[in-house]
Amino acid sequence: MVTMLEVTDITASVGEVCCAPLMKEPIGQQEAEHLAITLKALADPARLRLLSIVASSEGQEACVCDLIEPVGLSQPTVSHHLKVLTEAGFLSRSKRGTWAYYKLKPEALTGVAGFLTI
Amino acid sequence: MVTMLEVTDITASVGEVCCAPLMKEPIGQQEAEHLAITLKALADPARLRLLSIVASSEGQEACVCDLIEPVGLSQPTVSHHLKVLTEAGFLSRSKRGTWAYYKLKPEALTGVAGFLTI
Repeated sequence: MVTMLEVTDITASVGEVCCAPLMKEPIGQQEAEHLAITLKALADPARLRLLSIVASSEGQEACVCDLIEPVGLSQPTVSHHLKVLTEAGFLSRSKRGTWAYYKLKPEALTGVAGFLTI
Repeated sequence: MVTMLEVTDITASVGEVCCAPLMKEPIGQQEAEHLAITLKALADPARLRLLSIVASSEGQEACVCDLIEPVGLSQPTVSHHLKVLTEAGFLSRSKRGTWAYYKLKPEALTGVAGFLTI
């Protein structure tokens, strides 16, 4: 998912296309490329599980220290997936003391879902 | 996207998870794998454009003969992408005379969107 890092503002891209759903008129190449990058960030079992754990946590926020054991992956792998989700606009990251905390940005998910809805 | 061909009933998988949205409780590994496969089928610019053209056509159906020129890809490439979308449950295929026709299965898109919605 290295390509994610080359796109500086995926959330804005999702925002731009959220009002022209996939079903109303043929989408253009640029819109399709933006949406594909965003969907690719979601299209991974570990990332979906991490996103789901964060989203269902209190305040839709979780410490990275609480995310490693549930998915059964190494800390570097979990950090990589969280970075991809953050770059794609689905999570925001803040550091408090030793730990990083990740919080859901629900508008990014709503944007993708809205784009697919007829 | 060869993995798509190994999954016999993605639509059923999407249906199963549509009532347990990503945000309400942590999803399990099997649900995450099914959803990731479905999202991967969507996460391609050419497939998003093809799906969008079919979905915005009259009756949400289009002849393959009308899909090649708009996306500017070869006929084999377009056929491959249409096959992936069909295997993933987003399109159904019927043959009439010389041509194959592809019709949107909106419930598959609604299932994915519903899963992402909070």
